[in-house]
Amino acid sequence: MSRTVAAPRAYLVCVGSELLAGQVNTHQAWLSVRLRRAGFEVAGESSLPDSVADIRDAMRRALDKTDAVIVSGGLGPTFDDLTREAAAAALGRKLRFVPSLWRVILKRFARYHVAVPEQNKRQAEVIDGAEVLANESGSAPGLRLEFRWKDGRPRTLILLPGPYSEMSPIFTRALPRLAARHARGGSASFSLRLVGVSESVAAEALDPVRGRFPAASFTILASGGEVSFHATVRARTAAAARAEAARLRRDALKAAGRWCYGEGDATLESVVGASLKTKGLTLAVAESCTGGLVGGRLTSVPGSSAWFQGGVIAYDNSVKTKLLGVSAALLEKHGAVSEECAGAMARGACTAARADVGVAVTGIAGPDGGTKDKPVGLVWISVYGPGGALRARRHDIHGPRDAVRARAAGAALALLKEALDGRP
Amino acid sequence: MSRTVAAPRAYLVCVGSELLAGQVNTHQAWLSVRLRRAGFEVAGESSLPDSVADIRDAMRRALDKTDAVIVSGGLGPTFDDLTREAAAAALGRKLRFVPSLWRVILKRFARYHVAVPEQNKRQAEVIDGAEVLANESGSAPGLRLEFRWKDGRPRTLILLPGPYSEMSPIFTRALPRLAARHARGGSASFSLRLVGVSESVAAEALDPVRGRFPAASFTILASGGEVSFHATVRARTAAAARAEAARLRRDALKAAGRWCYGEGDATLESVVGASLKTKGLTLAVAESCTGGLVGGRLTSVPGSSAWFQGGVIAYDNSVKTKLLGVSAALLEKHGAVSEECAGAMARGACTAARADVGVAVTGIAGPDGGTKDKPVGLVWISVYGPGGALRARRHDIHGPRDAVRARAAGAALALLKEALDGRP
Repeated sequence: MSRTVAAPRAYLVCVGSELLAGQVNTHQAWLSVRLRRAGFEVAGESSLPDSVADIRDAMRRALDKTDAVIVSGGLGPTFDDLTREAAAAALGRKLRFVPSLWRVILKRFARYHVAVPEQNKRQAEVIDGAEVLANESGSAPGLRLEFRWKDGRPRTLILLPGPYSEMSPIFTRALPRLAARHARGGSASFSLRLVGVSESVAAEALDPVRGRFPAASFTILASGGEVSFHATVRARTAAAARAEAARLRRDALKAAGRWCYGEGDATLESVVGASLKTKGLTLAVAESCTGGLVGGRLTSVPGSSAWFQGGVIAYDNSVKTKLLGVSAALLEKHGAVSEECAGAMARGACTAARADVGVAVTGIAGPDGGTKDKPVGLVWISVYGPGGALRARRHDIHGPRDAVRARAAGAALALLKEALDGRP
Repeated sequence: MSRTVAAPRAYLVCVGSELLAGQVNTHQAWLSVRLRRAGFEVAGESSLPDSVADIRDAMRRALDKTDAVIVSGGLGPTFDDLTREAAAAALGRKLRFVPSLWRVILKRFARYHVAVPEQNKRQAEVIDGAEVLANESGSAPGLRLEFRWKDGRPRTLILLPGPYSEMSPIFTRALPRLAARHARGGSASFSLRLVGVSESVAAEALDPVRGRFPAASFTILASGGEVSFHATVRARTAAAARAEAARLRRDALKAAGRWCYGEGDATLESVVGASLKTKGLTLAVAESCTGGLVGGRLTSVPGSSAWFQGGVIAYDNSVKTKLLGVSAALLEKHGAVSEECAGAMARGACTAARADVGVAVTGIAGPDGGTKDKPVGLVWISVYGPGGALRARRHDIHGPRDAVRARAAGAALALLKEALDGRP
């Protein structure tokens, strides 16, 4: 086994004041995924304002530590687009106006019958030794610089325009050459998606596996009541990496398989939907405290109309009675947040929406409405069917209103998955 | 006017390998917005893997250049949670196990009848001189360090747990003290929340206002079919800043008031809820393509049970007929995605859930199901009531399935707001 092959490393620099003013940085995730799939380790990311000194310093630090530095943003025509200047300064090179590139930009504008602002001439400035990466969706071209850094080893610096529609095709075209230039051995990775377990209990169960694969890298992540476990293996060849990843995956499933509902990009709702589709069953929901969140997640799955009928948002008790057939006597005796009410709601959803399986959620999301016996965070989930079986589970969820509701919706999908798997 | 007071500066450090593996970094945007509103300039952000050296170096560099460094993530109990260690190293201080904090964590686990993994003891380690910021939604407490840096000037370092539901309340509670400690002069800010207008049209309308207040800073942000306009004014005193902000707000409302549904943290659902409550009206929903998203947003408002009855998720046409009373003839003649069907659904929701006002959504979310006449993205919204009036609006939304659904839900709330305001 060849466990000691280090991955080539990449660093992201995202330029733009809007990234520090509330705009969500989606380039970071998009570029990270593609770089990892191409065998890179992403060593870090910096979001910076349009400042030559800040961008230049971040580039230099990243070049000291990594093989490839990918910069997005700041290539536009206006005064506050300074990435070209910063890159030239980082490398101690000059910017030069390239008439042939300017003609390409002029042609582009002509196509749209738009007058070219004089300031756009800056977009035809190229750093000495850089290769122009054509931009077919906008006027700012990308730039690629391949060179040796202070340590004598090869580096690549790629500058990309900020808009996603321009950045993504340029980077997609540039990635194969980037990966080939910095390739070192091969890599393989996998993710397990877990539910019904806390992050720390899952980590404890997986600890011995991590111990047996000291050269693999791992992440474990909790979100909305679910846990993701991700592992990447590197080896001298892609085949060796795949074989090692297969062994690691088998061991991880032995340790955590009982909580694993899917792999890769699977979500609870997509897995539940696939299971319903395979079995030829339809589903209905009855939601009280979640108010539609379970239906919202289920219908996020493309093609969900094949197995999702709909259901009832039974926020007020009168709706539970009228549309779901929950009896006033039951509500009187057990209350709306009870195993009995959840069961009647799940059964009622099946009848009301003519479905084979029904899932119900009733609980106290807070901040008000809790009592000593039934505190905020108490949630009852019930699943009726398939085949007439009824199951229920109590949850005591701690946290603010949003967290209680999100976790209750996740718990409903998890119990549904159990019921569809026929687990006791 | 005293326009030259420099803002205190903050830097964000987001820790977690998942941020370099494809998870979208939403903390960056969330924290940036709140820091700006509190008068800070956000000088930059770094996303880093769980590496003590990387986190320590980034903290030191940020402390050299800014007043406040906010770190999120890496406070969990597992092997790869290293932020505490990195912060201790950056400041040259020791970590110490605090038995009283450990007892608080044990109590938390006891409430859930969960055995405490031994590794969780790390969460009871505190950096010398740090103040513990209580975490009411999880086991990892936050930490606050107030100290003087090499230049003798005050700095604050705040460590926050990674999960949003834990990070956000801790930071919200810590922000007033942070702002007060680093305040220079005064600042005042406000936000307008707009709907029914595109980002570029709103920006154009507000441009002259921006021109009249050259020293104020502005952000304009589009998200889910809504637009936020935020302005911050700095001056030598808080009173001067407030007076200038009041003038600016008056001008901004003159320019964009017709699209403004609320200010500050207002959401469409909270504004709709407040209006229903004031008027003593109740609401029901009928959702097809949104599958529960409208109900989910409405019930995110604490106390929504005072005005929200519930409703029907009518995904399949049989549910539209059976629970909402949409006639088979209507569906046959006009189709499920039509003004007529939306109107019948809105009216049916009122009857089914015994409410004064009903809102309905029906559309084609895609990726499949579109035709030439009814393409993907076509959405009909209808509102029935108050007082028996019926209104409907067609939307043609571009984008992937998630975007169509999210915008359709927003459009439903926007039309509901118009109906409650009695606008024509």
